[in-house]
Amino acid sequence: MSENIADLCRLISHGVYVIGVRDGEKTNAFTAAWVMQVSFDPVMLALSINPEHYSYRLLESGRCCSVNILGREQMNLAEHFGRSAADKMAGHSWQKARTGAPVLSESLAYFDCELSHFTDAGDHRIAVLSVVDAEMLRSGPSMLYSQTGDMDGSSELYPE
Amino acid sequence: MSENIADLCRLISHGVYVIGVRDGEKTNAFTAAWVMQVSFDPVMLALSINPEHYSYRLLESGRCCSVNILGREQMNLAEHFGRSAADKMAGHSWQKARTGAPVLSESLAYFDCELSHFTDAGDHRIAVLSVVDAEMLRSGPSMLYSQTGDMDGSSELYPE
Repeated sequence: MSENIADLCRLISHGVYVIGVRDGEKTNAFTAAWVMQVSFDPVMLALSINPEHYSYRLLESGRCCSVNILGREQMNLAEHFGRSAADKMAGHSWQKARTGAPVLSESLAYFDCELSHFTDAGDHRIAVLSVVDAEMLRSGPSMLYSQTGDMDGSSELYPE
Repeated sequence: MSENIADLCRLISHGVYVIGVRDGEKTNAFTAAWVMQVSFDPVMLALSINPEHYSYRLLESGRCCSVNILGREQMNLAEHFGRSAADKMAGHSWQKARTGAPVLSESLAYFDCELSHFTDAGDHRIAVLSVVDAEMLRSGPSMLYSQTGDMDGSSELYPE
């Protein structure tokens, strides 16, 4: 790689999402950028997730999640759910999706997903998700990951 | 799904890329939107590809590809490489990446990738790609898939 790989990766377009996970009574939600559509019929999404995170274990065992799309003005939500905190779901309004996954009522729209399977991808794992329901909650443009700068400190995570 | 699933899927942010594939003397290039980063260290990308397309066979057998990022003003390239045509690589300038994959010299930047593996995803397959080289070729903002409207006719591809 002849240049700064972090700068090059910033040219790949990603949105910003809050992923809601549930396993029985345990729930969590976290900010993610690595989400894309992967199939038209059936509609499927893929999410790349760090397997060392608590939410990965809930997704693996609960086998469902919500993918909540943040709007361009919702940087506060991206920051809030990007932090590690025991009670970060408190103070926000949640709906229960058909799968049981928690849906962030403030988001632009959500996809309710069942986990199909995981596949390995370096320091992350790709969760392949079957969309079982989806709903628009408000109108407006989606947030782009490029808006968030280095909010998540990811420039430190690349190889030397 | 209580609403038009095509409209909901348009809220997921994707870029626009030209994917260059090679197997021996056979090369091809096609426009794709379903590309994302999936790992920091090592740097890896994922591409969701229709397994019925000719380029899928070249990727499967040649086991390498370039992911060329289009800039916001390069709609002509997105349209050109989105068509099926026998000679669509002619009339454009190509470099040979380290893996041997063809790189589109007009693009903003490229990632040169080795195929790690495929995984199933509905009517597509996800190619998990290890980045072995990457280079910035010009400056400017990346094209967003949302700019392209229904250029690819994808609204017809969703379930009823």
